[in-house]
Amino acid sequence: MTEVTRHLAKWVVDSKFDAIPAAVRQSGVRSMLNWTGCAVGGSRHETIDFAIRALKPFSGPAQASILGRSEKFDMLNAALINGMASHVFDFDDTHLKTIIHPAGPVASAVVAMAEHRPMTGAQMLHAFILGVEVECRIGNSVYPAHYDIGWHITGTAGVFGAAAAAGKILGLDEQRMIWALGVAGTQSSGFREMFGTMCKSFHPGAAARNGMAAALLAEQGFTSSNRVLEAPRGFAHVMSASRDFEEVTRGLGEVWETALNSYKPFACGIVIHPAIDGCIQLRNEHGLKAADVKSVELIVDPLVLELTGKRTPQTGLEGKFSVYHSCAAAIIHGAAGEREYADAVVRDAEIMTLRDKVQARARDDIREDEVFVEITLNDGRVLKKHVEHAIGSLERPMDDKALNAKFDGLARDVLPVAKADALRELCWKLEGLANAGDLAKAAAA
Amino acid sequence: MTEVTRHLAKWVVDSKFDAIPAAVRQSGVRSMLNWTGCAVGGSRHETIDFAIRALKPFSGPAQASILGRSEKFDMLNAALINGMASHVFDFDDTHLKTIIHPAGPVASAVVAMAEHRPMTGAQMLHAFILGVEVECRIGNSVYPAHYDIGWHITGTAGVFGAAAAAGKILGLDEQRMIWALGVAGTQSSGFREMFGTMCKSFHPGAAARNGMAAALLAEQGFTSSNRVLEAPRGFAHVMSASRDFEEVTRGLGEVWETALNSYKPFACGIVIHPAIDGCIQLRNEHGLKAADVKSVELIVDPLVLELTGKRTPQTGLEGKFSVYHSCAAAIIHGAAGEREYADAVVRDAEIMTLRDKVQARARDDIREDEVFVEITLNDGRVLKKHVEHAIGSLERPMDDKALNAKFDGLARDVLPVAKADALRELCWKLEGLANAGDLAKAAAA
Repeated sequence: MTEVTRHLAKWVVDSKFDAIPAAVRQSGVRSMLNWTGCAVGGSRHETIDFAIRALKPFSGPAQASILGRSEKFDMLNAALINGMASHVFDFDDTHLKTIIHPAGPVASAVVAMAEHRPMTGAQMLHAFILGVEVECRIGNSVYPAHYDIGWHITGTAGVFGAAAAAGKILGLDEQRMIWALGVAGTQSSGFREMFGTMCKSFHPGAAARNGMAAALLAEQGFTSSNRVLEAPRGFAHVMSASRDFEEVTRGLGEVWETALNSYKPFACGIVIHPAIDGCIQLRNEHGLKAADVKSVELIVDPLVLELTGKRTPQTGLEGKFSVYHSCAAAIIHGAAGEREYADAVVRDAEIMTLRDKVQARARDDIREDEVFVEITLNDGRVLKKHVEHAIGSLERPMDDKALNAKFDGLARDVLPVAKADALRELCWKLEGLANAGDLAKAAAA
Repeated sequence: MTEVTRHLAKWVVDSKFDAIPAAVRQSGVRSMLNWTGCAVGGSRHETIDFAIRALKPFSGPAQASILGRSEKFDMLNAALINGMASHVFDFDDTHLKTIIHPAGPVASAVVAMAEHRPMTGAQMLHAFILGVEVECRIGNSVYPAHYDIGWHITGTAGVFGAAAAAGKILGLDEQRMIWALGVAGTQSSGFREMFGTMCKSFHPGAAARNGMAAALLAEQGFTSSNRVLEAPRGFAHVMSASRDFEEVTRGLGEVWETALNSYKPFACGIVIHPAIDGCIQLRNEHGLKAADVKSVELIVDPLVLELTGKRTPQTGLEGKFSVYHSCAAAIIHGAAGEREYADAVVRDAEIMTLRDKVQARARDDIREDEVFVEITLNDGRVLKKHVEHAIGSLERPMDDKALNAKFDGLARDVLPVAKADALRELCWKLEGLANAGDLAKAAAA
């Protein structure tokens, strides 16, 4: 395969919505619903306040809504801000093979375009699904080597997905789609070093904006290399120690990464979910109180300690990168939603005391969605739980009812209940919408 | 040195203009003059037309001029577009130790800010010099390993320089300057694969815009890692195979990279300059005509073939990456300005015939500013020239008169002569300007 980029671009250009299986389309709808809830829910976070305050004076015409807020921005800045909001709680979707959060870069781009450039719901869904395919396949081709180096793959692969989706909406021809991927790829960026800071959610937002800008530039004839993915100085060689281009091209249109998207029941990195799940199960089964607990022992996948090993988080954001805080909150509150990652909860004395009793040990044979939890009580009892597949995994997915409950928990914190509920129902009807711009309008405060 | 980023940020925050040696300030003025000429000269290139057409509908208030044109943009987009224009001819400045083009990312940021946020010429010059120090020192710390991987270092290091310069103008404190560098660094991007396409000039423009945005976000309290440069998953580890942080911090305020900036007499990559210089010298000394030439043999630094080995360029842009075209043009026209890289010149039959007679051989002991040229004539004569240091090198710098002539050649192609001349004189007076925004205003068409 010498022309990986061209092959992928041509597939996006030629794709017909009708050829996408109904189950894949439904996965796309579920992803869009989940993204919308996350973007509305995250819209009042101070990260978004700061970004809006910084960028508003330089923003263009009021073309696109900021979900959950009253401000409007030009569609490039709206993509940036909505993309940040959708990821700021670390509560968005996850492509488990790569830990990419697929919707952030892609949905943020297409939703921001829809108010300014009329499109049907089917067009939006089609572009979204193609964008997710592009980013996840590119991610597959370099994961895990690319991630191990320190790249935040949601940003680095996401920019390609945003460009493909925006390019599909613009109706780019094959050459222009190649250029769009090239202009996008040469902006690929984002360090894992930024985890735990506001820059983490900046990455999917920037990917959405930069990918959309790449498609807009390519539309005008702005050129790039034709081989951004495969060239010796292109993405897969420069930004990864190894690569497999078959992952990009094999089974296009037959195997759909969109159908492998998953949704988080807990508002933190997916790698801690098994531990939280196990702690909540033991809590509920035994009516546990924090004061009863002598120690909590976890046996976890090594990635848990690598990504979420913060022993003494100081803020809610840092709490999301602490398996210790997360398990303490799970045992005390029986949940790990956004509320359990408020600054005050992280600094709560009862939480901190229990947090210090949590120990985690990595073992190479533990899968990412697996955990062994052992809670020793002050009365000498030892409670054990082996979670084989955490809730939210492909083997134990959240059903539509659970997705709705998650959406409500996020959207009702920001919008009036009736408005939040109407938005939820609009999301389910996305494929049939005559004007997909209605989604962003309905989500604005 | 465990806190490289903090050390550098603190130095920028604490820097006083008066402490900068006069010779360094004068280097800064020369760099700004050269950048202004390049930005005006490049402003009508189709790359800029395409970018303006793509981005205008999404741009903010008319805060900043596009040099050489009548459009105004918000200061973020103006930085992007002016940065592209200043590099589109590959005629801008060069920091020879790293092949960074320092002014593109930094000057484009400060000039775009100056019309919207009043500042004196001294403030602008100060911020510019600090930005150049930051980007070149960061470049020094990872060059050549970073460049060898395939990164376009002007973009990847330039974004830090733009953030530092913009942050200095905004008066950021130490913590916010650290965040500005972090938000900038996590956007660091740009592949060498894009050389020969419009994306090459996109890189310094994007660096200018993204670095400025980073400073604006940090001003509002937007957080990043405090260790973007030195962290195991930060810039210098993720994007380079080796690094030396002493290059960032050693001799700050004593040794000035700005004083090592150089200017191109020829409108192409600096690595071909020795060959062009040698060919022009032989042409002028012997009154050469193309028809007299049987063959041209070059012995060059290996980088010449790696970067500019295009045998059969099809466009002017590709011609800049062809040592063969460049030498043919030098022998026929006695110059290698922007005119010699017009599409028509690259496709000219006489040029193409002579181009095919040029051979280049790499030898490891040839320095980057050195060449051996041997021209064999049809009458059997063999003309030889050993260029030890190409014109434009630190050993044979362009003097102010030559810089003026280069400026005139660029600016008078775009602006009326009187306006171009007034702009040139304004650039020389930069340090004393009460309102640095006058520079951009004077450069607008």
